[in-house]
Amino acid sequence: MRLSKMLFVTLRDDPADAEIPSHKLLLRAGYIRRIGSGLYAYLPLMWRVLQKVSKIVREEMNATGAQECLLPQLQPADLWKESGRWDTYTKAEGIMFSLIDRRDQQLGLGPTHEEVITAIARDMIRSYRQLPLNLYQLQTKFRDEIRPRFGLMRGREFIMKDGYSFHVDEASLKETYQDMYQAYSNMLRRSGLAFRAVEADSGAIGGSGSTEFMVLAEAGEDEVLFTEDGKYAANVEKAVSLPADAEPSRFTTYEKRDTPGAETIDKLCQFLKCSPTQVVKNVLYQTVYDNGVTVLVLVSIRGEQEVNQVKLQNELTKLASNYGANTIIALDVPNQETQQTWAAKSLPLGYIAPDIADEYITANKQIHPKFVRLVDKTAVELKNFVTGANETGFHVVGANWGEQFQLSENVVDVRKARSGDRALHHPEQTLQSARGIEVGHIFQLGTKYSLSMGATYTNEQGEEKPLFMGCYGVGVSRLAQSAVEQSYDKDGIIWPVAIAPYHAIVTIPNINDARQVEIAQQLYTELNRAGIETLLDDRDERAGVKFKDADLIGIPYRIVTGRAIANGKVEVVERATRNSQEIVIEEVTSTLHKWIAAAIEVKN
Amino acid sequence: MRLSKMLFVTLRDDPADAEIPSHKLLLRAGYIRRIGSGLYAYLPLMWRVLQKVSKIVREEMNATGAQECLLPQLQPADLWKESGRWDTYTKAEGIMFSLIDRRDQQLGLGPTHEEVITAIARDMIRSYRQLPLNLYQLQTKFRDEIRPRFGLMRGREFIMKDGYSFHVDEASLKETYQDMYQAYSNMLRRSGLAFRAVEADSGAIGGSGSTEFMVLAEAGEDEVLFTEDGKYAANVEKAVSLPADAEPSRFTTYEKRDTPGAETIDKLCQFLKCSPTQVVKNVLYQTVYDNGVTVLVLVSIRGEQEVNQVKLQNELTKLASNYGANTIIALDVPNQETQQTWAAKSLPLGYIAPDIADEYITANKQIHPKFVRLVDKTAVELKNFVTGANETGFHVVGANWGEQFQLSENVVDVRKARSGDRALHHPEQTLQSARGIEVGHIFQLGTKYSLSMGATYTNEQGEEKPLFMGCYGVGVSRLAQSAVEQSYDKDGIIWPVAIAPYHAIVTIPNINDARQVEIAQQLYTELNRAGIETLLDDRDERAGVKFKDADLIGIPYRIVTGRAIANGKVEVVERATRNSQEIVIEEVTSTLHKWIAAAIEVKN
Repeated sequence: MRLSKMLFVTLRDDPADAEIPSHKLLLRAGYIRRIGSGLYAYLPLMWRVLQKVSKIVREEMNATGAQECLLPQLQPADLWKESGRWDTYTKAEGIMFSLIDRRDQQLGLGPTHEEVITAIARDMIRSYRQLPLNLYQLQTKFRDEIRPRFGLMRGREFIMKDGYSFHVDEASLKETYQDMYQAYSNMLRRSGLAFRAVEADSGAIGGSGSTEFMVLAEAGEDEVLFTEDGKYAANVEKAVSLPADAEPSRFTTYEKRDTPGAETIDKLCQFLKCSPTQVVKNVLYQTVYDNGVTVLVLVSIRGEQEVNQVKLQNELTKLASNYGANTIIALDVPNQETQQTWAAKSLPLGYIAPDIADEYITANKQIHPKFVRLVDKTAVELKNFVTGANETGFHVVGANWGEQFQLSENVVDVRKARSGDRALHHPEQTLQSARGIEVGHIFQLGTKYSLSMGATYTNEQGEEKPLFMGCYGVGVSRLAQSAVEQSYDKDGIIWPVAIAPYHAIVTIPNINDARQVEIAQQLYTELNRAGIETLLDDRDERAGVKFKDADLIGIPYRIVTGRAIANGKVEVVERATRNSQEIVIEEVTSTLHKWIAAAIEVKN
Repeated sequence: MRLSKMLFVTLRDDPADAEIPSHKLLLRAGYIRRIGSGLYAYLPLMWRVLQKVSKIVREEMNATGAQECLLPQLQPADLWKESGRWDTYTKAEGIMFSLIDRRDQQLGLGPTHEEVITAIARDMIRSYRQLPLNLYQLQTKFRDEIRPRFGLMRGREFIMKDGYSFHVDEASLKETYQDMYQAYSNMLRRSGLAFRAVEADSGAIGGSGSTEFMVLAEAGEDEVLFTEDGKYAANVEKAVSLPADAEPSRFTTYEKRDTPGAETIDKLCQFLKCSPTQVVKNVLYQTVYDNGVTVLVLVSIRGEQEVNQVKLQNELTKLASNYGANTIIALDVPNQETQQTWAAKSLPLGYIAPDIADEYITANKQIHPKFVRLVDKTAVELKNFVTGANETGFHVVGANWGEQFQLSENVVDVRKARSGDRALHHPEQTLQSARGIEVGHIFQLGTKYSLSMGATYTNEQGEEKPLFMGCYGVGVSRLAQSAVEQSYDKDGIIWPVAIAPYHAIVTIPNINDARQVEIAQQLYTELNRAGIETLLDDRDERAGVKFKDADLIGIPYRIVTGRAIANGKVEVVERATRNSQEIVIEEVTSTLHKWIAAAIEVKN
């Protein structure tokens, strides 16, 4: 393609609304344009990158025997009501755009396709002989994000490959899950990305196990914890670890102490001259279930630890049936105003005891919440501990479970693992932390959707059984931007060769020099014929402008038909390393061929 | 692909809700499944067809220098308000799905992208040096159809290639329009379709000229009129022609006649023993403009002719500014109930005069419509004509314009051309009629969107000028189904080789015959390696079932590893002709290569 014929507009300055480097660079280099909040046009250069990523994704999926299809983006609400997710997705989390058609039927704009594919499986799969089956699609998805940002990273429209597999049993599911794990690793490696596969929480998708594929970058929204030896890696939402040992308590007798102004753990420990590991901290949460029932949750945890809200949410979801509910639609630490909707007396913040007094949680005012206590394992192990006295300005010391305080039956792990903790199964290893961009997520769904939607098959014995399912997603547009986030310098983007929009750019320093133009056009034609995707910068611009633009858009190899042509050579500059060398014109194509082949891993 | 591993389910019987052959066949053969009204899943076989059509479309577009991009499907309402189409698309015609996001912002789901691309052009195009520019995308579009039907033909979600070009002037636009005309012709020819390019009405898209590409098929929703010599072809909505000459009137004196029960032209002519070409027929329409103004429209036309409602709508749109409006949102022949909302006296249907009496059109009841008269050219030319007397049971004969009736200043062509009419510019040719499926439509938009949205460029003289635009659409999913509508027999689909999901299928008649299986697998591997896309029917089914399925799904070549293998041969059956021949196993690949190459035209 000739730049003079392309929609090619670069910006000198960083756009005001872009926060992270990759977002700024994609805007400046003319890859994308913002059309509305979280809505972007993929311009021709970006489209080529997306096509290359898509090609790698397809090749890896097809190699596993998965079959491509395309499902509707508009989805009848009825299907989502069958699975029980309509309210969660359109109201509680509100993440799904919904609309009413001209016949007053409700439709959702697909953020994911478990319901649709399960309806198809229910219709078409009859026998074990049709299994396993793995279907996938590449498609634009929609999410009504609370805060769309970072360009393509968290847009309201984005391109996904989502796939769904069906199985006779869990063993077959695990086999395909393993294939997908490998395929996803291949996709990211072939796209030229540094990444980590981590254990993950399954969230609203559900199921029994999942792995996220994280592209490592400072701007990542996720935190990953991992061991140096690579044997353990998990999203912080999911991570487990061994906390540091608690120090033995220095309080041997139970007594109430005056602790004025000690409403934080730090202040308390300073005041009492004790370690935070000797303290039981009690935090009150408020959760609302999908049937409207409000439950107050008191979590007791060791003083220096923090509550992992995702783990807490999972524990509370397990208790949902106790309250006649299916799922949680809200979980917060209540503020004073909220607290006053159910209690007459303000909470003694910083002084709450493990058996919080009734007056703080029920006073028959506007709402009548239920109440439950959870105790984290770190708190359970403590002896002679320090904790709140349910009265502002007072703590108790030397307390013990089963003596002053009843231990709740709900002993759980809701602790947030963190950098520096020892690994649970490899205690000789310490957890380290990194930021990651989640570009892929694979799930073992089990029978969650097949049971709720009645998708069954007949086994060899003629019995009707629920299908086992897996689902597998990779964000194609997010992956493309994450490559930029991982690879740029002060002058612009440095694309991995495998997903660069073009391999090479031939730059004519002086468009008025007929010899330069002739050689450039000849090389441009020759390179493209040889399958090396090449741009020709034939614009009537200064050489400096052209070099700056080539650096900004990040094409791997720049060929300059400058002074060296007098010696039958051209200058070839590698964008990533800035290495420059003069190459004999007749050898440019074969040289680039070799370099590109070395840089790109092709699927056989 | 092995059928045993595929999502491959065929149905024995026609699905109840499918009306046309292609819809029935695509459902029966397992290409598509209905997910909701007008919403279909494209299953793996269908997806391959769509990918092949898309590839041809891309190749033809790229060959013209057009650049692929991808625009958001969700579109901010503000853009559509700038162009003035928001109300027309979401309310009047209601063809665009609209929704409200979590921040109460209005969004539309794109049925087309003039607004978005014009916003991009406004942002990025500054100078004549960037022009011409032609951008296109392949994307799923949405239309909230009044009556979704015929499968992919009129779905609520469908795949389109839409393209938009920008120019300094009309001459440049016409050049690209001509390129697109050629590219579209190439796409359809290469896809193996019989089609006709016809003059078309530009409808709600607007602009000065447009061509539709019609795939010819009985089930087509459109009527096409054309001359044998191919010099003229048009959609009936747009078509012009020469009507038959009127017979000279047999009434020389003006008088009122008693014509009881002559409320149709046929009865009237029988009663008066005159030709319908001597009659002026008067039809009352009611139209509503976008500002809510209602206008009654009396159309006078020669007795045997019919009103073309599209032409009428275009004429009334031209008059919109007279009523302070921009466009029409409804146009109907009012029924009695409607008529009584604005008149006290019922219309004398069949007896209305060219100067309809006031009492029939205004009586100050609920609404106060305005009134306008239009006279079709066929009526203007009549002398001593017969027409209604504004009184049930009475006509007048021997009437003349300028004598008994004032001729309206609005003389128009609103006549529906029809088969048998003489061609306007080739009166020696007679128009013929065919049914067509509109799969492509290209438009010269001119400055409609650039003016309303302020998209300009600076010309060589430094002056700011509005961009000239063209837009070009082809329905990828509709094209695929139209191929089936054009090519099937009682046993199933007969795909054109160029867009068949697979080129060949190797059928093993008896899966328990090791020799059959061995040769089949060997051929299957060899064919695929040679780039001949081949299925292997390795299912444990009877041979008859397999042959029936292969016919149903319409794969061009079936290779049967049956009895002939004893002689080192296999049977090869061509689906389209049912020609069967035995071919030496070693020559199958080269033979198919030759046949397929002969059947497919490849873009160089």
